[in-house]
Amino acid sequence: MTREEITQQILTARLAKGLTWQQLADAIDKPVVWTTSALLGQHPIPAESARTLVGMLGLDESVVPVLAAVPMRGGLPTAVPTDPTIYRFYEALQVYGGAIKELIHEEFGDGIMSAINFSVNVEKKPHPSGDRVVVTFDGKFLPYDWTAAD
Amino acid sequence: MTREEITQQILTARLAKGLTWQQLADAIDKPVVWTTSALLGQHPIPAESARTLVGMLGLDESVVPVLAAVPMRGGLPTAVPTDPTIYRFYEALQVYGGAIKELIHEEFGDGIMSAINFSVNVEKKPHPSGDRVVVTFDGKFLPYDWTAAD
Amino acid sequence: MTREEITQQILTARLAKGLTWQQLADAIDKPVVWTTSALLGQHPIPAESARTLVGMLGLDESVVPVLAAVPMRGGLPTAVPTDPTIYRFYEALQVYGGAIKELIHEEFGDGIMSAINFSVNVEKKPHPSGDRVVVTFDGKFLPYDWTAAD
Amino acid sequence: MTREEITQQILTARLAKGLTWQQLADAIDKPVVWTTSALLGQHPIPAESARTLVGMLGLDESVVPVLAAVPMRGGLPTAVPTDPTIYRFYEALQVYGGAIKELIHEEFGDGIMSAINFSVNVEKKPHPSGDRVVVTFDGKFLPYDWTAAD
Amino acid sequence: MTREEITQQILTARLAKGLTWQQLADAIDKPVVWTTSALLGQHPIPAESARTLVGMLGLDESVVPVLAAVPMRGGLPTAVPTDPTIYRFYEALQVYGGAIKELIHEEFGDGIMSAINFSVNVEKKPHPSGDRVVVTFDGKFLPYDWTAAD
Amino acid sequence: MTREEITQQILTARLAKGLTWQQLADAIDKPVVWTTSALLGQHPIPAESARTLVGMLGLDESVVPVLAAVPMRGGLPTAVPTDPTIYRFYEALQVYGGAIKELIHEEFGDGIMSAINFSVNVEKKPHPSGDRVVVTFDGKFLPYDWTAAD
Amino acid sequence: MTREEITQQILTARLAKGLTWQQLADAIDKPVVWTTSALLGQHPIPAESARTLVGMLGLDESVVPVLAAVPMRGGLPTAVPTDPTIYRFYEALQVYGGAIKELIHEEFGDGIMSAINFSVNVEKKPHPSGDRVVVTFDGKFLPYDWTAAD
Amino acid sequence: MTREEITQQILTARLAKGLTWQQLADAIDKPVVWTTSALLGQHPIPAESARTLVGMLGLDESVVPVLAAVPMRGGLPTAVPTDPTIYRFYEALQVYGGAIKELIHEEFGDGIMSAINFSVNVEKKPHPSGDRVVVTFDGKFLPYDWTAAD
Amino acid sequence: MTREEITQQILTARLAKGLTWQQLADAIDKPVVWTTSALLGQHPIPAESARTLVGMLGLDESVVPVLAAVPMRGGLPTAVPTDPTIYRFYEALQVYGGAIKELIHEEFGDGIMSAINFSVNVEKKPHPSGDRVVVTFDGKFLPYDWTAAD
Amino acid sequence: MTREEITQQILTARLAKGLTWQQLADAIDKPVVWTTSALLGQHPIPAESARTLVGMLGLDESVVPVLAAVPMRGGLPTAVPTDPTIYRFYEALQVYGGAIKELIHEEFGDGIMSAINFSVNVEKKPHPSGDRVVVTFDGKFLPYDWTAAD
Repeated sequence: MTREEITQQILTARLAKGLTWQQLADAIDKPVVWTTSALLGQHPIPAESARTLVGMLGLDESVVPVLAAVPMRGGLPTAVPTDPTIYRFYEALQVYGGAIKELIHEEFGDGIMSAINFSVNVEKKPHPSGDRVVVTFDGKFLPYDWTAAD
Repeated sequence: MTREEITQQILTARLAKGLTWQQLADAIDKPVVWTTSALLGQHPIPAESARTLVGMLGLDESVVPVLAAVPMRGGLPTAVPTDPTIYRFYEALQVYGGAIKELIHEEFGDGIMSAINFSVNVEKKPHPSGDRVVVTFDGKFLPYDWTAAD
Repeated sequence: MTREEITQQILTARLAKGLTWQQLADAIDKPVVWTTSALLGQHPIPAESARTLVGMLGLDESVVPVLAAVPMRGGLPTAVPTDPTIYRFYEALQVYGGAIKELIHEEFGDGIMSAINFSVNVEKKPHPSGDRVVVTFDGKFLPYDWTAAD
Repeated sequence: MTREEITQQILTARLAKGLTWQQLADAIDKPVVWTTSALLGQHPIPAESARTLVGMLGLDESVVPVLAAVPMRGGLPTAVPTDPTIYRFYEALQVYGGAIKELIHEEFGDGIMSAINFSVNVEKKPHPSGDRVVVTFDGKFLPYDWTAAD
Repeated sequence: MTREEITQQILTARLAKGLTWQQLADAIDKPVVWTTSALLGQHPIPAESARTLVGMLGLDESVVPVLAAVPMRGGLPTAVPTDPTIYRFYEALQVYGGAIKELIHEEFGDGIMSAINFSVNVEKKPHPSGDRVVVTFDGKFLPYDWTAAD
Repeated sequence: MTREEITQQILTARLAKGLTWQQLADAIDKPVVWTTSALLGQHPIPAESARTLVGMLGLDESVVPVLAAVPMRGGLPTAVPTDPTIYRFYEALQVYGGAIKELIHEEFGDGIMSAINFSVNVEKKPHPSGDRVVVTFDGKFLPYDWTAAD
Repeated sequence: MTREEITQQILTARLAKGLTWQQLADAIDKPVVWTTSALLGQHPIPAESARTLVGMLGLDESVVPVLAAVPMRGGLPTAVPTDPTIYRFYEALQVYGGAIKELIHEEFGDGIMSAINFSVNVEKKPHPSGDRVVVTFDGKFLPYDWTAAD
Repeated sequence: MTREEITQQILTARLAKGLTWQQLADAIDKPVVWTTSALLGQHPIPAESARTLVGMLGLDESVVPVLAAVPMRGGLPTAVPTDPTIYRFYEALQVYGGAIKELIHEEFGDGIMSAINFSVNVEKKPHPSGDRVVVTFDGKFLPYDWTAAD
Repeated sequence: MTREEITQQILTARLAKGLTWQQLADAIDKPVVWTTSALLGQHPIPAESARTLVGMLGLDESVVPVLAAVPMRGGLPTAVPTDPTIYRFYEALQVYGGAIKELIHEEFGDGIMSAINFSVNVEKKPHPSGDRVVVTFDGKFLPYDWTAAD
Repeated sequence: MTREEITQQILTARLAKGLTWQQLADAIDKPVVWTTSALLGQHPIPAESARTLVGMLGLDESVVPVLAAVPMRGGLPTAVPTDPTIYRFYEALQVYGGAIKELIHEEFGDGIMSAINFSVNVEKKPHPSGDRVVVTFDGKFLPYDWTAAD
């Protein structure tokens, strides 16, 4: 079974069992965004955690080594996302991406926010005019650095 | 002169004058991400603020009404960004977009993070293993709500 | 079974049973556009309604939790629709989209029509020179509003 | 001067003169959506009306025959619109397009809503939880009809 | 079974049975271009005709309601056709499409040739230097007409 | 001046002079579809005819050799046309292209309709329920023929 | 079984049986490029030849009528080929396509090399600095010729 | 002036002066396909030859160093060519590309036809049923060879 | 079974058996990058080596002739890679590709680095500020050389 | 003047002055790949170095602040490069990208080669069968590391 097929099984099994992503994350003591992303096929899951999750979801144990392997990443079915919930983040990049780039350079110099030494947090914050979704992208600054092995 | 041509003039004039985005934002007393995004052509700039900025940058006053009009938004030159600093945010969507969607639904129910009732913050946070770029997307939760005018 | 596979089953079962979309909507006491869109895989269907529909269509009860989950939305098979009935709406956007944008801004200020706090209505209206299809897109105006959680 | 260049001039002149689209429409006694769309390059403008508009906007009279000619239509700069105000309509097509198609067929039979014998209306409607943008697409139903000239 | 799967069965069954498109069209007393297009999945086939065709082709009777439903139209596997026989028509659009547009406007005014009130004819015409394929697109002229339901 | 720039000049000059495509065609005694297509940049125009046309349109004589050269053909600004008048022909290909292919093969055998040994005709034909646009694509049948120079 | 599925079977069977394309071509006494292209799904194969090939490859006789039908042509899986052996021909078009066009026009006048009245030859030619692949595209010149059926 | 601008000048100047590609090639004693391709911006032209050509075409001598530099190659304006004369070669790749690949491997083993150690020839060959365009792609066979510098 | 299906089996079997790519490469005494690429479907694997690998992985012997045949190459699922590990190489091309081209021309003259007479090496090199990935692309220089078979 | 316009000036001026990239790099004492890439618009050039280069190339001093600013990176004119010299690197990614990914994971664990803490080297290495282009991509290994600012 390929990783994509396992991801499909996970999605269906989670709904059938009525498990939340938080419960799955708690079971392996990992952050919930990381766990969800991993179960959606974007991160390798260490074998022990994979066994726990596979047990909770009632999948076949034989999928563990595939879950534990580094996957081919990239989870959007189209280059420009069509799902409205995901699209809003793409739209934010269209409108604010240039500004974010300019300000990273103004505050840090030439370089990028790492998407590897990185974490994401999704939070629900109350506000008088309605709850807010606060998503934090938190990555190490990596300055452009022309270095060679020797 | 079109908004695009004015944006090009702003970019060149800012560098020639040696002004920071923060100085431009302070001059009109607006958040710096908003100001930068607006100067990059993504938001209308109220006429009074536009006049201040146009003065600082040495542009022609005739551009003010164009700056004050709602622009055609969308600032990425290609659907998939090629600039590495901007690309990392697109990559984060590829890897974490599905998980963010699932968790918004798990925590809030069916709906989206608004990209209109919305703000972005770019912060530099120290960390023992190197400064971090922390970018916060903060939007009102909008539940799917089947409503009609009457 | 994935949501896509369930949608295929729904389409075939509806035709085999000779049910109209209106009958399906009436059975769960929901607007017909909403119901049709949901059965086409674009909205979660509350479990109780899902059970009713699954019964009418003769599908397996095990699909209920998948129908009740928020789906990955986006129902057009290509970025530019090829089906003539759907294409005409895309064409209307090509010809009138710019004008609609300008007039939303002229009447309401800077902002958008929400597609989330939103309803669609399809009506048949008589006219001396032939019946007319009147489709109403009705969404809450959302002004651009730079707000943060605190 | 090409139609595209004239459209650019119209956009800038309108802002410089501080004219609303409604004022321009009133001056030629035409619906405002039609007028705006026409001034954005999507419809021919009868020569007399064109002369009135050209006068109000201070453009050169020589552009009148170009405005009066049928233009090459299609006003979106990219196949999938990036501007958020326009995008919401595209998103509505992604989510509700399939349902609209099914219901046109259920209510009218096989055929389409004409986008040629057609009008669009943009209205502001009050609502307790906030004003609503109500956009009506109103086109003649055209049944699929296999007809030949003789 | 989906319409696409039925179309595949039709294609194979027709070849296995050695039936011509003309024979299938004659059996239901419909024009041959219409019949072929319908059997290729582009038109609904009235139930009675569908039963006749299904019988001739030896398919299962259960496909009749799917054949009788309005299909999702659009039969080219890629946006630009790769098959040489079909490509030549696309090429003709590239070379003559602009001229056809200009002449429709010159002869009829602003509007289009309907592709809905429409028929196509494929004819073999002799010519001293070799037989000719004469394909006629025959559609009602639809003038741009700004009409509303009331 | 490139052919594209000359085409732009022709378009504007024709409107300014109030010349019809038919008048231009008559002046050089050529079919009107051919002439229009050629003036839109899709065919070389023999020098003598070019001189006549350049004279009528008031262009500079120096463009004649460029008009007389074989152009880089292909007149649609996007792979899928956005102009509604042209789009209908593309739509007809989506809906009837497969059927046309099948019937060319059924009537002629394996091969194509030439788009080179070819003519197009645009006609206005009366019909009780409204005038019809009848466009005839007329090309020599070319059978697939595996031939080599020697 | 569709033509695509048959092609997959042919590819696997040929390798399992250890047959060369030349042997298959010799068995039906046809040129090897034509035979290979036909077996890859790009040409109809006359029933008798198809039976011979099907026998050699050990396929089911029922595929013969599908092989004998004119296929939907177009064998590249992506618009720009990714396989290096095929890509080099695409690259040659990028670098020399413009020149080939100019020289066809200079030597023959306005027109094309037919890809229908056409043959291809692949030859191995010795050369002091290494064997050469010599691929000849040989098509009848077709002059642009505005002809109609009557 | 960029190479692209110089190419445009060359194209116009050649037509204005009435020079053939063959005459230009003869003047620098190079093959005509190579010369044409180089003048279309696909090859560097040695300074001495460039000076000769620039003289014949009446261009400014300052373009010589740009002509002598290696250009950014790739001469098709779209990934899939729209010009019919060039398209036929792309079509031949769609229909015969797979076969050519298989036969190169059958005759030579794993590897490619070089497009660098390569020449193209365009010939006019008589044939009883009409002159033929014979285009020969002639490239050194390069076997896949896993070699490292040391 | 097609090569793609075999590749999927190899990927799963390798993980299930806990074999490293290095072990597989050692077993057939080939470089590890070559072996991995071949097992991912990008190179033919000589029958004897294929048999060894098939044995280690527990696949069916019948796949050997397919593994031994030259595959259709091209291993990226999208034209622009989405996997971050692979994307970085694409990004390096975006940022340094132009410079690499200029320097190959400056140091070697007009030509290319062969990707056929070519090897790749992946090395882990220590560095005070962290281990480095050093990937070497090593290809024979091929000068543009206009040569014909005779 | 925009960075793109300055890049064009640099390219032309370098050729007109007959300067090599190496000479430009030596003048500012920087690696030649870095310098070339920066002059092609992919890196900011410190003001002092920029002044030196601008002097050598005879450009206007006013371009210095633009050269010193962080540019919008991404130097390929199309997503898939068409220039053969650059394409070979893209092809190498198609053929070896999957293998490189697998081996980075096998040797280093889950993570990427940084393209920011990174250098590229282009070397000419002699080899008995012809000089080789050896391009080394050398980037710091970045392990996937779920870290947050606090």
